[in-house]
Amino acid sequence: MKFDTYFTMNEDQAAQYASQKFGHMFEPGHRVTCKEIGDGNLNYIFRITDEVSSFSIIIKQSGPVARISDEFKLSPDRNRIEYEILKLEETLAPGLVPKVYAYDPIMNCTVMDDLSDHQIMRKALMEFKTFPKFAHDISDFMVNTLLLTTDVVLEHKHKKELVKNFINPQLCEITEDLVYTEPFNDYKQRNDVFELNRAWVKEHIYDSRPLNLETAKLKFEFMNHAQALVHGDLHTGSIFVKEDSTKVIDPEFAFFGPIGYDVGNVVANLIFAWVHSDAHQRLEHKKWLEDTLVETVDLFIEKFQKAWDRNVSEVSAKTPGFKEYYLQMIMRDTAGVTGLELCRRIIGLAHVKDITSLKGKVRMRAERICLTSAIRYILDREKYMCGTDFLETVIACESEFARENDE
Amino acid sequence: MKFDTYFTMNEDQAAQYASQKFGHMFEPGHRVTCKEIGDGNLNYIFRITDEVSSFSIIIKQSGPVARISDEFKLSPDRNRIEYEILKLEETLAPGLVPKVYAYDPIMNCTVMDDLSDHQIMRKALMEFKTFPKFAHDISDFMVNTLLLTTDVVLEHKHKKELVKNFINPQLCEITEDLVYTEPFNDYKQRNDVFELNRAWVKEHIYDSRPLNLETAKLKFEFMNHAQALVHGDLHTGSIFVKEDSTKVIDPEFAFFGPIGYDVGNVVANLIFAWVHSDAHQRLEHKKWLEDTLVETVDLFIEKFQKAWDRNVSEVSAKTPGFKEYYLQMIMRDTAGVTGLELCRRIIGLAHVKDITSLKGKVRMRAERICLTSAIRYILDREKYMCGTDFLETVIACESEFARENDE
Repeated sequence: MKFDTYFTMNEDQAAQYASQKFGHMFEPGHRVTCKEIGDGNLNYIFRITDEVSSFSIIIKQSGPVARISDEFKLSPDRNRIEYEILKLEETLAPGLVPKVYAYDPIMNCTVMDDLSDHQIMRKALMEFKTFPKFAHDISDFMVNTLLLTTDVVLEHKHKKELVKNFINPQLCEITEDLVYTEPFNDYKQRNDVFELNRAWVKEHIYDSRPLNLETAKLKFEFMNHAQALVHGDLHTGSIFVKEDSTKVIDPEFAFFGPIGYDVGNVVANLIFAWVHSDAHQRLEHKKWLEDTLVETVDLFIEKFQKAWDRNVSEVSAKTPGFKEYYLQMIMRDTAGVTGLELCRRIIGLAHVKDITSLKGKVRMRAERICLTSAIRYILDREKYMCGTDFLETVIACESEFARENDE
Repeated sequence: MKFDTYFTMNEDQAAQYASQKFGHMFEPGHRVTCKEIGDGNLNYIFRITDEVSSFSIIIKQSGPVARISDEFKLSPDRNRIEYEILKLEETLAPGLVPKVYAYDPIMNCTVMDDLSDHQIMRKALMEFKTFPKFAHDISDFMVNTLLLTTDVVLEHKHKKELVKNFINPQLCEITEDLVYTEPFNDYKQRNDVFELNRAWVKEHIYDSRPLNLETAKLKFEFMNHAQALVHGDLHTGSIFVKEDSTKVIDPEFAFFGPIGYDVGNVVANLIFAWVHSDAHQRLEHKKWLEDTLVETVDLFIEKFQKAWDRNVSEVSAKTPGFKEYYLQMIMRDTAGVTGLELCRRIIGLAHVKDITSLKGKVRMRAERICLTSAIRYILDREKYMCGTDFLETVIACESEFARENDE
């Protein structure tokens, strides 16, 4: 079989493809086996394993439409973006992304490290595991990939060439629709609201004029504010973890957007894990998540400031007060995006298992704590300046729910 | 002579070039003459005239460096940008830009209408001429070229492709340096401050921490806020006028930036004309300029709102309150840029004749009215909501100068 025209491979074809194109990575004469292990929304993930040595690699192939819904037609250019971004991120944040070996623009494949000794973080957190290095690693990843791709650090012409190279219209459109538009506009074709919260969502989300206005403002900031090369999908399903290692994967949504988009996604997904642990009354794990949430935000701020002092030479950015202004803008966007992500994963098309695995009133309660927090994060987004500010909101909303429901 | 390799043409060569490439535009057998008439900073402008019929065209050629200073190395890609922008602007704002006939990517030339029946507006205003249609025309031009290239109107993926196509790193760098950086940072290599105001500029501009901080914020908004396809250099030297016609030329600085960048440039340059007429005690002309300034801003706002209601179908942009928020953001940026342009033309490298043609204390006074106004526009930029707000500031600063100097 020749692989000179694009088609979507099955397991057998992917195994053949690996032998033919990347045979040199395996022991001579050994057979390889292949298993499709993808459970994401957009791509096919093949694990190719040497039957004797057990050495394995991953081949990630883009399909022409999203797996989640064939309404989303996607240019396979996202695979080029993903490959280039992983290469770039490895130089900016070494050790925190998988190594990539090759990119095939015909088959729309990227070949990369197999991280099967790691676990998807969302799943691990739902098993109540803890990762002591996580806050350190993810804050390193964010500070280094984000601050170092802004024009407070990069030469301005070089930064504009990067902006051009990573304009990502189709993937951004998915985010614009699923995150910024549909959850706030009663988009019946795709929204999916848990029945016990339907009336509440209508009253407090769909019909809230202040919320609609503030999310519209945030949407245009997302579309127009080319601040830094954001990952664009930095939830706990895009992070592989093990005890001593964190790897951020799946940067196909990457583009130049607001820094707070990444930070807010991390915070919101820690909150999903928090309500999940709370629902299961795993109080120790819940406490670890609270500490991790606060630590993640505070380490981000602390490292961001240090990295700023070390790296920023732009004359205007060095103006006294500018660093504080810039960081405040990031925190404001972070709070806004935390709220958006909390809403869209509960109301919109793409849910998270932390929530959907819960049943009945337990799920209703978990969602309501997330949604009431979300509204505050969005409407009061100017007020969030440190990790504790973020944590206090969910704790207040939890108490409020208990009071209002006579728990 | 073949024109198959780029070189900077002289008049004879440009005449040959026109005969050879665009002979079909002239009467058969007629000779053409050529005169270089450019007085801008970046390009060579050849007028090619049919000796018998007097029909003429303009050939605009980009040089490899700016005429103003060979420190600015410029990719001739700006000529491609200019050609494409003029074509696009003609569809968005018909009749308000010169017609373009051809673009030659080898010689970096654009061939366009000769507007020699028009006059450069700065010069005309310095001769105390008035243009009754100007406020109407320029507000039409701005509303149509700006609002219609935002993503409140354009399909989002299409808008992102346009952003990509018009990323303009070198020309933006000139603006970042000359407008946003050097005038506020005592950039001795290039700034050029009139001696009677040197001490004042040091105290009130270079040493003003609030001003430095606010201009730094505006600089990053200019660089990162890809709101609309702005002209990028919309001063009165980029506008050709006659009694019944307005033509905007020279869009080579165009890129996706903040709408207020264009509006603020128009306002600031009307203020330069205003202090010039004031210095010459041409009170009637000064009054016309006051009316025109107010009318330009108010017509812009009025037409912008009407065009919004007619053209905007984006679901989030239609949220009640969003139009008002968006317009307020534009007015805030307009005020900021008005202040920046007033400063940079007095302090920075590229001055304007409205000011430099004045002498001694008359010039000192004119500059001081501009600079004190500029500081207010920048620091209080949230407060400017209509044309009168803009006018009141210069009138207040004029009175203040009179009081402080016992006039």
